[in-house]
Amino acid sequence: MFLKEQLMKMLEEREDEMIEIRRHLHENPELSFEEDKTAEYIAEFYKDKDVEVETEVGNGHGIVVTIKGAKQGKTLALRADFDALPITEEADVPFKSKNEGVMHACGHDAHTAYLMVLADCLAELKNDMQGTVKIIHQHAEEVPPGGAKSIVEAGALDDVDAIFGIHVLPMGPAGTVGYHSGYSFNGRAYFKLKIQASGGHGSSPHKANDAIVAGSYFVTAVQSIVSRRVNPLNAGVVTVGSFDGKGTFNVIKDSIELEGDIRFSNDETKEVIDKEFHRVVRGVEELFGVTCELTYEHDYPPLYNDPELTTFVADTLKEVEDEDIKEVKEFPKMAPSDDFAYFLEKVPGSYFYIACTPKGMEEPYFNHHPKFDIDEDAILVAAKSVGHVACSYLAMDK
Amino acid sequence: MFLKEQLMKMLEEREDEMIEIRRHLHENPELSFEEDKTAEYIAEFYKDKDVEVETEVGNGHGIVVTIKGAKQGKTLALRADFDALPITEEADVPFKSKNEGVMHACGHDAHTAYLMVLADCLAELKNDMQGTVKIIHQHAEEVPPGGAKSIVEAGALDDVDAIFGIHVLPMGPAGTVGYHSGYSFNGRAYFKLKIQASGGHGSSPHKANDAIVAGSYFVTAVQSIVSRRVNPLNAGVVTVGSFDGKGTFNVIKDSIELEGDIRFSNDETKEVIDKEFHRVVRGVEELFGVTCELTYEHDYPPLYNDPELTTFVADTLKEVEDEDIKEVKEFPKMAPSDDFAYFLEKVPGSYFYIACTPKGMEEPYFNHHPKFDIDEDAILVAAKSVGHVACSYLAMDK
Amino acid sequence: MFLKEQLMKMLEEREDEMIEIRRHLHENPELSFEEDKTAEYIAEFYKDKDVEVETEVGNGHGIVVTIKGAKQGKTLALRADFDALPITEEADVPFKSKNEGVMHACGHDAHTAYLMVLADCLAELKNDMQGTVKIIHQHAEEVPPGGAKSIVEAGALDDVDAIFGIHVLPMGPAGTVGYHSGYSFNGRAYFKLKIQASGGHGSSPHKANDAIVAGSYFVTAVQSIVSRRVNPLNAGVVTVGSFDGKGTFNVIKDSIELEGDIRFSNDETKEVIDKEFHRVVRGVEELFGVTCELTYEHDYPPLYNDPELTTFVADTLKEVEDEDIKEVKEFPKMAPSDDFAYFLEKVPGSYFYIACTPKGMEEPYFNHHPKFDIDEDAILVAAKSVGHVACSYLAMDK
Amino acid sequence: MFLKEQLMKMLEEREDEMIEIRRHLHENPELSFEEDKTAEYIAEFYKDKDVEVETEVGNGHGIVVTIKGAKQGKTLALRADFDALPITEEADVPFKSKNEGVMHACGHDAHTAYLMVLADCLAELKNDMQGTVKIIHQHAEEVPPGGAKSIVEAGALDDVDAIFGIHVLPMGPAGTVGYHSGYSFNGRAYFKLKIQASGGHGSSPHKANDAIVAGSYFVTAVQSIVSRRVNPLNAGVVTVGSFDGKGTFNVIKDSIELEGDIRFSNDETKEVIDKEFHRVVRGVEELFGVTCELTYEHDYPPLYNDPELTTFVADTLKEVEDEDIKEVKEFPKMAPSDDFAYFLEKVPGSYFYIACTPKGMEEPYFNHHPKFDIDEDAILVAAKSVGHVACSYLAMDK
Repeated sequence: MFLKEQLMKMLEEREDEMIEIRRHLHENPELSFEEDKTAEYIAEFYKDKDVEVETEVGNGHGIVVTIKGAKQGKTLALRADFDALPITEEADVPFKSKNEGVMHACGHDAHTAYLMVLADCLAELKNDMQGTVKIIHQHAEEVPPGGAKSIVEAGALDDVDAIFGIHVLPMGPAGTVGYHSGYSFNGRAYFKLKIQASGGHGSSPHKANDAIVAGSYFVTAVQSIVSRRVNPLNAGVVTVGSFDGKGTFNVIKDSIELEGDIRFSNDETKEVIDKEFHRVVRGVEELFGVTCELTYEHDYPPLYNDPELTTFVADTLKEVEDEDIKEVKEFPKMAPSDDFAYFLEKVPGSYFYIACTPKGMEEPYFNHHPKFDIDEDAILVAAKSVGHVACSYLAMDK
Repeated sequence: MFLKEQLMKMLEEREDEMIEIRRHLHENPELSFEEDKTAEYIAEFYKDKDVEVETEVGNGHGIVVTIKGAKQGKTLALRADFDALPITEEADVPFKSKNEGVMHACGHDAHTAYLMVLADCLAELKNDMQGTVKIIHQHAEEVPPGGAKSIVEAGALDDVDAIFGIHVLPMGPAGTVGYHSGYSFNGRAYFKLKIQASGGHGSSPHKANDAIVAGSYFVTAVQSIVSRRVNPLNAGVVTVGSFDGKGTFNVIKDSIELEGDIRFSNDETKEVIDKEFHRVVRGVEELFGVTCELTYEHDYPPLYNDPELTTFVADTLKEVEDEDIKEVKEFPKMAPSDDFAYFLEKVPGSYFYIACTPKGMEEPYFNHHPKFDIDEDAILVAAKSVGHVACSYLAMDK
Repeated sequence: MFLKEQLMKMLEEREDEMIEIRRHLHENPELSFEEDKTAEYIAEFYKDKDVEVETEVGNGHGIVVTIKGAKQGKTLALRADFDALPITEEADVPFKSKNEGVMHACGHDAHTAYLMVLADCLAELKNDMQGTVKIIHQHAEEVPPGGAKSIVEAGALDDVDAIFGIHVLPMGPAGTVGYHSGYSFNGRAYFKLKIQASGGHGSSPHKANDAIVAGSYFVTAVQSIVSRRVNPLNAGVVTVGSFDGKGTFNVIKDSIELEGDIRFSNDETKEVIDKEFHRVVRGVEELFGVTCELTYEHDYPPLYNDPELTTFVADTLKEVEDEDIKEVKEFPKMAPSDDFAYFLEKVPGSYFYIACTPKGMEEPYFNHHPKFDIDEDAILVAAKSVGHVACSYLAMDK
Repeated sequence: MFLKEQLMKMLEEREDEMIEIRRHLHENPELSFEEDKTAEYIAEFYKDKDVEVETEVGNGHGIVVTIKGAKQGKTLALRADFDALPITEEADVPFKSKNEGVMHACGHDAHTAYLMVLADCLAELKNDMQGTVKIIHQHAEEVPPGGAKSIVEAGALDDVDAIFGIHVLPMGPAGTVGYHSGYSFNGRAYFKLKIQASGGHGSSPHKANDAIVAGSYFVTAVQSIVSRRVNPLNAGVVTVGSFDGKGTFNVIKDSIELEGDIRFSNDETKEVIDKEFHRVVRGVEELFGVTCELTYEHDYPPLYNDPELTTFVADTLKEVEDEDIKEVKEFPKMAPSDDFAYFLEKVPGSYFYIACTPKGMEEPYFNHHPKFDIDEDAILVAAKSVGHVACSYLAMDK
């Protein structure tokens, strides 16, 4: 375990650098698919280092850095995302966003910062390293179709045995690491439904066919999908976020447009909701004699953490004697979606959590809040945790 | 107008006989399609009289009595129904029903009584009469499919030019006659709908398909037929009278059965409800993936009074100077149904109203109430009104 | 009946003038409450004539012209409305609207034209006239609160015994006059309902309270008012014409706004819908824990034609021997609303119909259609019909 | 660890006796609260043994057996239930139920069998035992209010530090043991709702108030509780199992009665459903002007396994080297309810699973199926697993 000891020591020494990188990124956030300077900054970092660097991977600015160990072994991928959000920062920090209306409100700056330094350390130690590490700096996590899917399609994981990644979350003090086995983030679909009926005068409903009535029955019927068709032990959500039926009080509306958001905790639920949603649409067509035009698109699948590798992560981190890693515990399932799920569809792995609640805050602002902030101590925790897991994984025999 | 004067005089003289007949019938009521003794009693009355009598006409005890005038002319039909209801009489009258649980609670006893005597008078006067009068004593008005349809199908109206009939109603004092032009009584349909889904344990809705949920959405969706598809100026009703879904609290119900009653004021509304009801059934099948077994039967059509003949009735009665006929006025549309509608589908005619509120009652019991009663003065009003109309009709040139 | 003969002769002679006036008005339409030039034009017409003229009566440009007969008698009001609609004319006529976007698409130009000439004739004949005629040129019929209510409130009908008015309708050839007794036009109410719930993220419905779901259940529940609470023999309509719930697909909507139109054929139905609508609003507040802000305003009441005066109109016109008045018959109830109803709440009267289908058209464009047009022969029919009725009414003893 | 080795040896030697006891119980099943002979049989077993026995504990035939170790220590409770179900056995076994219509279809016979022998062994070894073991033979698990709550109320757990119990489940071969931390079985509530409206004739809905319509809207509205108010990551179910609205097709129903079953995976969900269900009831009262009579009763709470003690169970069993215990793994949450939850409300503990799929069956019949059967090898697994856990627990210092 000489490698691991060396690595931890190097990470400790370069903590300030990680924080510096994170602050630089925080000050210069870029929206998904528009991360030109961020990608350039990362690529620049690896220049002249003894690693292979591929840029513009996938449908955007994805970067894959390959670090080959001196000895034969498995290939492990580590991923961090680097895009920001269309949010105007309200956090009171000296390194506040300089790009008005754009903010690293989800912690991707911290993800990228720790992984750049970790990658560099591993590159320096590669003579002692068994196997290969592929560093995936992913663009565009926040906006479907995301960057992950295209990176997988580009073949980046073709030779990879496993993948790990982390997300910072204000769900405990820096030093806490969370894990969850099996389905861990919800999958997501989007729909747009236009209901075409026929208009008429408000006093003569029989000469028209009321699109608002059809749409309203649709909304009530759709409730029965979650209440009666989804396994109660799974999570399913069908939200109609928009009912665009503005019209004139005394004119029967000829068409309306609904838009919405669908969530599912696993593939079984995804399939149930898909099938039942389409059925309800056809049912309403028949019921009211209207014509429905449906757009229904999956974006991110449910994220499934391999139980064996998740246990491996948990056991590895519980056993290390590292005073920066204070507690390792199960975290609950998460309602949101993350396109790390695509990597996990391709190879087994685990996506785990680095607690980052700012010191002294009892009710921290959550990710995506304009005042979201992190305890920067969590960056070293991330680097060390992923470092421990990577070293142990590569050292394993099978 | 010698005929009419003679007739009125005869009717006045035989008023007591009419009342006697009515009381006899009232004491001996018989249910629809079971009017054996009533039919026998009526047939007996015509025995040895100079008229043609057909019995057992149609699908029951219908009786048709033909009275041929000395002179050629038109053929006019007059109809009275003679069945009673499964109601236990609570009216405090000396001639109370002797047939426990059966009651002439709709006034068919009065209808039959006046028409028997009127027929007999016309028969006596037939040498002075131009044209032919067909007296139709109809069985089974109260219970679908009724007697009227079968009497029409038996050909009784094949040679008839017009038909009149009356109904007693406690909507004014004896002496008031009401009329309504066009659609006057609602038509009616019956439905039974079995929704077959699949049962399961109450804790696991996703493994079952809940028939109660499907049935409940059906009931709410069906409301939109009357609220949005029926012309508001017409009358339409869809009543779900029975929702048979009794089960066990923790078992998801596999099937339910609904039954109901449909009303419509005219053929347009009948067709709209027919079409839309079937559409909603198919819609619910699709919406919930259930199988529906539908029985949908029309019984009585909407009753349509010929406007010209209704005006003829109104004008004739307004013009007569008869102190028994005190007021002639328009009555509103009626919500119930009457199979006189079948006669009016075959030949033009008018079905009008003889007010019969018992003297001194401000809020009389309505037809079908266990305490329903009539002012017996209305019987002579009925006889005279129909007599006037018949004589005038037969005397018309065209 | 010298007066009536004289009047008819004068009207026939001035038919061209009526048409000319109508065309002038048609070319110069003005919107409700903005009829400056129209009112000026009418007032100018009466200048120097031997009548009393009041202008700016009520809440707009109402004009009341009083013609006092030489002999004492009853006071009769005659009304015509003169506002136009925000419709761009598409009718192919030489006197097409010069006011782009505004059109006399409801025939008020014809109403005003005949009444001006009729008034002038009556003024010339007033030495032979018994009683008083009040000519009401009403502004703003098309837009609530309308002009009629304010004219009544201004006292214009305080000394009036009865009122008549007509509406042109393409429901038969010129020469046909229609009448309807009792409730004849629907009354109307307007509502706006804001449902305030609370927003949230689409993936977490339990942390929000979905306004679209509450609104949709509201729309379905409201159907039961018409389907179950309104007497099927009456007419009731509740139209939700606007469902303003446009939002973002993955955000739960915090509030929505509905607007709609309510119709009722009589006061009973008006009261039922009022009560039940408010009940449903309160029910939805409770059911979903939302806050409802309701605006509910009556505009026009149901229009009730006095049965006696309607019979009087029908009988009078049936009896006249005037070759311009070819047929007098019952017309059905009308679904729209008209503020003539306010006059009829104050004094008895009758609002009847002058058929105006352009010659040769089988399916004429209806009132409010951009291609609406009339057979101008109907203008003389209107003048004569109202003239006959007015003369007969004033000549009556009681 | 001498005690544990001794115990395991004894259990192995007495495996046949456990099977014999299980078969005796299986042949003689008794319904909940009626387990006279079963309780007698168990009590008889302990007669003349050196333990304290309390019978008729709680609201039925509960038996508590106390085994005091020679050395001071903690007090641990172990529970097995012994009631059977009203199911006619269809399993093809030589020891089939002799009590027609009653069957041990849930495996309580196996639970009781292993625990009796385990208790006896512990009693024999008590000189080497530290602390006290309380054996709880619980009556009436299957039927609310169950036996557990009353046993707690009787004080049986007042001096207890922790409790363990197991359930046999055909979710793997004998030798597999399952565990689940935190909320593991759903809680449950029961409701009965009478909706009182007012009846009437099918043709005249406005004179009645339709209970079927109110009930149907209730059922659709109630769907929104699970779909929108329950946290999607929790489990909630509201099943309307009975909609008793049978009536006559043409009569509007005056009242209906609903009954149903409510499930919730944790206390948060329990509270949300409680609150929202009552709200929907009040909402429907207001919405339709009906009167609701609601019975709403909680029976079993959600079952919460103490995370620390569940980890203790899992770790203990993973570490033992016992060839009968082949695999220890996480099991999913269970949809049903179990009144072991009441014990866990009083003291911490864990309820875990003994896999029992009959050899050679790929799709075994589940608990409560008439053909449910177990691999009797699982009985020894149960005894040993609980034995290991109990010995390790009592041996722990804190």
